[in-house]
Amino acid sequence: MMKKWVYLFEEGNASMRELLGGKGANLAEMTNLGLPIPHGFTITTQACMDYFSNGEKINAEIIDQIEKALKVLQNQQNKIFGDVANPLLVSVRSGARASMPGMMDTILNLGLNDESVKGLAQRTNNERFAYDSYRRFIQMFSDVVMGLSKSKFEDVLQSIKKSKGYVYDYELQVEDLKYVVSEYKKFYKENLKSDFPQNPKDQLFLAIEAVFKSWNNPRAIYYRKLNDIPADWGTAVNIQAMVFGNMGQTSGTGVAFTRNPATGEKQIYGEYLINAQGEDVVAGIRTPSPIIKLKEDLENVYNEFIKIADILENHYHDMQDMEFTIENGKLYFLQTRNGKRTAQAAIEIACQMVEEGLISKEEAVLRIEPKSLDQLLHPKFSNEALKNATVIAKGLPASPGAACGRVYFNAEDAKNAHKRKEKVILVRMETSPEDIEGMHIAEGTLTAHGGMTSHAAVVARGMGAACVSGCKEVEVDEENKVMHIGQYTIAEGDYICIDGSTGCVYLGQIKTIPATITGNLEKIMTWADGFRTLKIRTNADTINDAKTAVMFGAEGIGLCRSEHMFFNENRIPEIRKMILARNVEERKVALDKLLVFQKEDYKGLFEVLEGKNVTIRLIDPPLHEFLPKGDDIKELANQMHRDYEEVLAQCESLHEFNPMMGHRGCRLCVTFPEIAQMQARAIMEAAIEVIKEKGYNIVPEIMVPLVDEVKELKFVKNIIVDEINKVFKEKNIVIKYHIGTMIETPRAALLADEIATEAEFFSFGTNDLTQMTFGLSRDDASKFLGAYYENGIYENDPFAKLDQKGVGKLIANAVKLGKQTRNDIHLGICGEHGGEPSSIEFVNKLGLDYVSCSPYRVPIARLAAAQAAIKLKK
Amino acid sequence: MMKKWVYLFEEGNASMRELLGGKGANLAEMTNLGLPIPHGFTITTQACMDYFSNGEKINAEIIDQIEKALKVLQNQQNKIFGDVANPLLVSVRSGARASMPGMMDTILNLGLNDESVKGLAQRTNNERFAYDSYRRFIQMFSDVVMGLSKSKFEDVLQSIKKSKGYVYDYELQVEDLKYVVSEYKKFYKENLKSDFPQNPKDQLFLAIEAVFKSWNNPRAIYYRKLNDIPADWGTAVNIQAMVFGNMGQTSGTGVAFTRNPATGEKQIYGEYLINAQGEDVVAGIRTPSPIIKLKEDLENVYNEFIKIADILENHYHDMQDMEFTIENGKLYFLQTRNGKRTAQAAIEIACQMVEEGLISKEEAVLRIEPKSLDQLLHPKFSNEALKNATVIAKGLPASPGAACGRVYFNAEDAKNAHKRKEKVILVRMETSPEDIEGMHIAEGTLTAHGGMTSHAAVVARGMGAACVSGCKEVEVDEENKVMHIGQYTIAEGDYICIDGSTGCVYLGQIKTIPATITGNLEKIMTWADGFRTLKIRTNADTINDAKTAVMFGAEGIGLCRSEHMFFNENRIPEIRKMILARNVEERKVALDKLLVFQKEDYKGLFEVLEGKNVTIRLIDPPLHEFLPKGDDIKELANQMHRDYEEVLAQCESLHEFNPMMGHRGCRLCVTFPEIAQMQARAIMEAAIEVIKEKGYNIVPEIMVPLVDEVKELKFVKNIIVDEINKVFKEKNIVIKYHIGTMIETPRAALLADEIATEAEFFSFGTNDLTQMTFGLSRDDASKFLGAYYENGIYENDPFAKLDQKGVGKLIANAVKLGKQTRNDIHLGICGEHGGEPSSIEFVNKLGLDYVSCSPYRVPIARLAAAQAAIKLKK
Repeated sequence: MMKKWVYLFEEGNASMRELLGGKGANLAEMTNLGLPIPHGFTITTQACMDYFSNGEKINAEIIDQIEKALKVLQNQQNKIFGDVANPLLVSVRSGARASMPGMMDTILNLGLNDESVKGLAQRTNNERFAYDSYRRFIQMFSDVVMGLSKSKFEDVLQSIKKSKGYVYDYELQVEDLKYVVSEYKKFYKENLKSDFPQNPKDQLFLAIEAVFKSWNNPRAIYYRKLNDIPADWGTAVNIQAMVFGNMGQTSGTGVAFTRNPATGEKQIYGEYLINAQGEDVVAGIRTPSPIIKLKEDLENVYNEFIKIADILENHYHDMQDMEFTIENGKLYFLQTRNGKRTAQAAIEIACQMVEEGLISKEEAVLRIEPKSLDQLLHPKFSNEALKNATVIAKGLPASPGAACGRVYFNAEDAKNAHKRKEKVILVRMETSPEDIEGMHIAEGTLTAHGGMTSHAAVVARGMGAACVSGCKEVEVDEENKVMHIGQYTIAEGDYICIDGSTGCVYLGQIKTIPATITGNLEKIMTWADGFRTLKIRTNADTINDAKTAVMFGAEGIGLCRSEHMFFNENRIPEIRKMILARNVEERKVALDKLLVFQKEDYKGLFEVLEGKNVTIRLIDPPLHEFLPKGDDIKELANQMHRDYEEVLAQCESLHEFNPMMGHRGCRLCVTFPEIAQMQARAIMEAAIEVIKEKGYNIVPEIMVPLVDEVKELKFVKNIIVDEINKVFKEKNIVIKYHIGTMIETPRAALLADEIATEAEFFSFGTNDLTQMTFGLSRDDASKFLGAYYENGIYENDPFAKLDQKGVGKLIANAVKLGKQTRNDIHLGICGEHGGEPSSIEFVNKLGLDYVSCSPYRVPIARLAAAQAAIKLKK
Repeated sequence: MMKKWVYLFEEGNASMRELLGGKGANLAEMTNLGLPIPHGFTITTQACMDYFSNGEKINAEIIDQIEKALKVLQNQQNKIFGDVANPLLVSVRSGARASMPGMMDTILNLGLNDESVKGLAQRTNNERFAYDSYRRFIQMFSDVVMGLSKSKFEDVLQSIKKSKGYVYDYELQVEDLKYVVSEYKKFYKENLKSDFPQNPKDQLFLAIEAVFKSWNNPRAIYYRKLNDIPADWGTAVNIQAMVFGNMGQTSGTGVAFTRNPATGEKQIYGEYLINAQGEDVVAGIRTPSPIIKLKEDLENVYNEFIKIADILENHYHDMQDMEFTIENGKLYFLQTRNGKRTAQAAIEIACQMVEEGLISKEEAVLRIEPKSLDQLLHPKFSNEALKNATVIAKGLPASPGAACGRVYFNAEDAKNAHKRKEKVILVRMETSPEDIEGMHIAEGTLTAHGGMTSHAAVVARGMGAACVSGCKEVEVDEENKVMHIGQYTIAEGDYICIDGSTGCVYLGQIKTIPATITGNLEKIMTWADGFRTLKIRTNADTINDAKTAVMFGAEGIGLCRSEHMFFNENRIPEIRKMILARNVEERKVALDKLLVFQKEDYKGLFEVLEGKNVTIRLIDPPLHEFLPKGDDIKELANQMHRDYEEVLAQCESLHEFNPMMGHRGCRLCVTFPEIAQMQARAIMEAAIEVIKEKGYNIVPEIMVPLVDEVKELKFVKNIIVDEINKVFKEKNIVIKYHIGTMIETPRAALLADEIATEAEFFSFGTNDLTQMTFGLSRDDASKFLGAYYENGIYENDPFAKLDQKGVGKLIANAVKLGKQTRNDIHLGICGEHGGEPSSIEFVNKLGLDYVSCSPYRVPIARLAAAQAAIKLKK
């Protein structure tokens, strides 16, 4: 049997999104709901993957099926593709399984040529419309299919508008448009050494190939990486009969959401333009009207629109993002999908829908993208500070969030500043898909043009980044890298702040305060806590971090990096003296001073945690990381009353070729047992004192890092236990404690059965485990990983998202072996991955007891753990 | 039932060496053969391990069994331990499962005290003998058991000898010895704040504990590491009734071998001293007489000795190393063991014994320690060069080998010079166990004192290092670090050469020539080749290396590190230009020049290998390794007509934090596909030309390094295959080739099933695999691995001997997965471990097809592979 590569809209439904892409599946679903959808058909995602595996050729079977579907479409529309008198025009649009707004390519008005444009003019009795469609088609086709820069076409358009004194495109007259068409074709021929293709079939297949290829364009690859979309999904292609929003004052086009995607408010929210085609709205060239104004312009159309929007939301049980076109007073829907929304909106909508009985609590919890909580948890401007701040402009509140940074006027400069560790606000006339990386690294984006559904607004909401769009007071001079707002001139590198919730733009920097968990967010988190089985701990080294994490719901500390406490100004000299000690005695003198500091630190943590588990990792980094450089060595030598040359030589002798794999972790305790003794003593003395003072039930957990071998762990453990017993004797008290290890070398994972004989708990240190499993240095990988993404070798940064296939195999093995030896071994993960949703789902499946992540990721982890538990139950 | 911790010699036999140690088991065997062995008993190795696990205490059960055995011994000897009138004296000697000459401790004459020394004098009617024994006992006990430095005791002895004008110890008179005893006791009390212990039971148990503890002294640990002896074997303790070689002119003591341990010649070979105790011979203070002279001194004793030596060799089917003592004309054997021998002797003896029908060919192959072949394969002095060399002294040919280096006069200085990459000759008056590390790193050892069985001679033969001992012309001034030989004064750092086969010492440096495989070595290697199933390849990057390896029997090249060819003076500028290219065009220009060089290199290799397999690895190291430093950057910038600052910045930008895990291996080909293209082209053009010119059947194997992921391999493979197809088209010829990969990251090993879909062969890169599995940088580990050996955490350097437990588990997994996917996948190993016998045995068991090692290790690998096959068959 022949494989089916092409589906008429009538043949599909919403459940077929893998095959038809999101857009195709929903067009089919809407068609079958009897809604006003222009006829069309979908070429499957499998056809796209076949195209790539077939050396970028569309196979004959697919071509045949496309031609057959085209014939059906001709009959349905009663028009003929390529006909001069009665031409069928189509749109060719991409549609992947997951929505990737603006990432791939679309061509409208396909089928026009020098002859059929005349036929179209005659038949519609609207010559202006016909030539407007043709000039749009030539520009889009040249850009999307042939790769000619859009800006040259824009230049032609601008220069005629300027010479005639027009402001808007719709002011262009028929003769103007004919001139534009002829200029466009001339430009096309000059650059491509051939005439603009006149055969509609050629146009069609070139366009289909262009859509296929757009699956692998750099911005699509980048978007996929950002959103964990696999490269082998492919995109479908939708061929649909054109309806025209550019036929005059009773025509138009728009986009709308069934609820407010920024706040979640239950209210139709959208924009439209009269006498325009789709891309005019999204591109943000003209600022569109709010949807409510449609009631004044075309009341019947408005009422029908509201009715259908309700049908769609009730049908999909989720907030819808819709595209529509009005052709001579008749409404058509061109797309519906579950709308992207801010985290705040997602939470509001989920809670509303539970109340409305539309969805269950489990479903509500599943509806929130855990990563998106990030937006809600970042600091806000303090009300106090806002009182003294200067509002210099106000735009549209396109995506909420408080952002402060230095201004940069293009994505490239923004990225470079980000590399220099600057905080960046990206300022653009309007954004385009090329700006996506710049927006991603920026604290926030400000645009002069574009509405609430402009590219900048949609993408920023998707990223959860602050955005103020359509800020008309802003005059951007991108070339000279400066902007003017009234009396103010703001140059590249100057500080501004933007508030995406209010649309306000401020001069200079403004103080922020931490976020809190309240209202509907608290409600969702409480539901989530009821579903999850994983415990959530935090990685915290300071009292402040610990307080924040506890406030965000951390149930303990999974990783306290004891050495981070040493970097404080008072302490660093003592750790340096300890490292540079010439013998055990000198080292002990320095350690005695550090003991006082360490004990104080641990007491603080135990007090904040009030008896919740605290896992303290013994000193881990290579010692040279603590040492001074350059002139500071001289100063240190003076302080120590020692010879500079000698101290310098000692510092230099600590240099390592590959410090990541050098003298660090428990290797430090094997060579300098005094360090482990000091740390064990500080931990236990602190715990005993807090128990006595506060009465908390504290069971300290001491974690030995970078273990390779059970004998190594045993050696260090013996040192610790001996010291602890001394403390117990001195203080005349015995308390419970646990000793465990990080599993962060492949060898430890491979031999976890042996290691479990000495370890009461394992904490998977997935950062180092990833480095060693791949043989990939986190600090060096950025130089070449880009080429890996571009070539489709890796799709994700393995340091952000756990490599389940490789590293995960080691972890699964270690879990199995560890439990073999010690049935009740306590298992957790404390690498960066501990706060990453897909990694949390993976370790939940493996049966780990907890994840530990940075304080601001605790709520994310709570939600992700709940989703993991719900999915596992299903 | 009570565990048996103590065995009378009558209760044991030679097969019980695990329990009784080598010495104890052989004493038992000899006792049961009816040979003249003083009575005694053995405390088992298990008692030693019990002592350590029991917090360094001898448990009551063991004490009880020792006391019972002691009673039996009293009855057998008709003497009473601790009796004043008729004292039983004993020796207390260590004896591990494997022979560890001089590494652990021995105490003789135990049981003497201020009273029993008088009884001994009366009973033997030999007061001189009694006090000589007592002073020896005090010195040994104080040194071995109490840790007092031997040298202070020697000073006392030397000063009285000097004051009386004596040269030898045996000239000391009774009164002198009494004075020495009182001085020794005084010194003991001053230092240890207690009297020398008078109770023989106390003496005995302190001595037993000292022997137990000696198992973990630093030199024993070092020796174990050198000889792969596990730490948990422990040592047995042998308590034996004393017989005395120091009773006068019909008494004596000696050591002998049944064949010559340096050359293998079939002839009794040994030395003895009249009126002396055991340690006098080994310590090399007096130069002893050759064994043949015993025939003149004591003919009956000599004849009996020869008879028993024959019995022992025939009984053990191996060359024996024996210790004996003559007490008043009666011969006793105190030890026999399979004698240590040089590689040359081992080969001679094995071949002789096959001819004599004593052993099979398999047994002969098993008898040769593969590592020992190293000695035979190192260069020899060229006969030509020797003609012009100056012989400045001649000593005993104690251990064969030609060695050339700078003179150092103590182990410490020698080790430091070695660290500075100097070649070292260690020159000592006589060596002691403290010198073992110095001897190990030295090219050879020269001693002024000591015979063919002195410490230096025995240890050097064990190590396979050149040694000339007992070179009387040499006057060593260790304090001033200079030696005088006749007219010559040779200071620290001056060059000399020694020839351990002739005993000659030469001034200055002498040219060497490569060794060859001939005679009995060739015979053994031919037998070995008949038994082994593993193929042996070599790691060779140059034509010279390849020639040497083929001469040594290499069956192919398993690893050609293509980048090593770039370090040549002509080529390095081109690779630098390639690296510093600012764009693909500049890079291609440089690569085109490199192509010419690479092709030439590969042609050379293909010609030498004559159709044997050649595996070429694509460029592997981080690019900055090729770049110049300091002023050389300026020069390079000039050569390239480029701005210095710019070139400098480019060089600096290539710096990496952890280059081992950075931008290297196939990652270079992912970012710079032009490099892979150039190399693939060079390989194939070279192969095609050599096929055309010489008619060899060449099937090049191209190896992609540092693969983590099958898509990565596929990406690089596609580049290579495309380029190869271009070459085929241009040359109008198609030849066979294979593409495979190194398995050197844990991830590759874990996902070997996927990787095998694209790889036709795997070569395990165990150097990197070990680094990553342990998270241990080979270049940095030496700073702390010492502490790991001392604390018994690791026993071996995992970079020298494959970590079978951890890394081996990954390899075994990869072998299984690889074969699952591709049944006929070709498997090899090309890390340092490819030439290490225990690692070869391991990979033979796993079913690998070949090992690849450095050229000089090829014969070692051939032999080790044969032994592995023979053992596996058993």
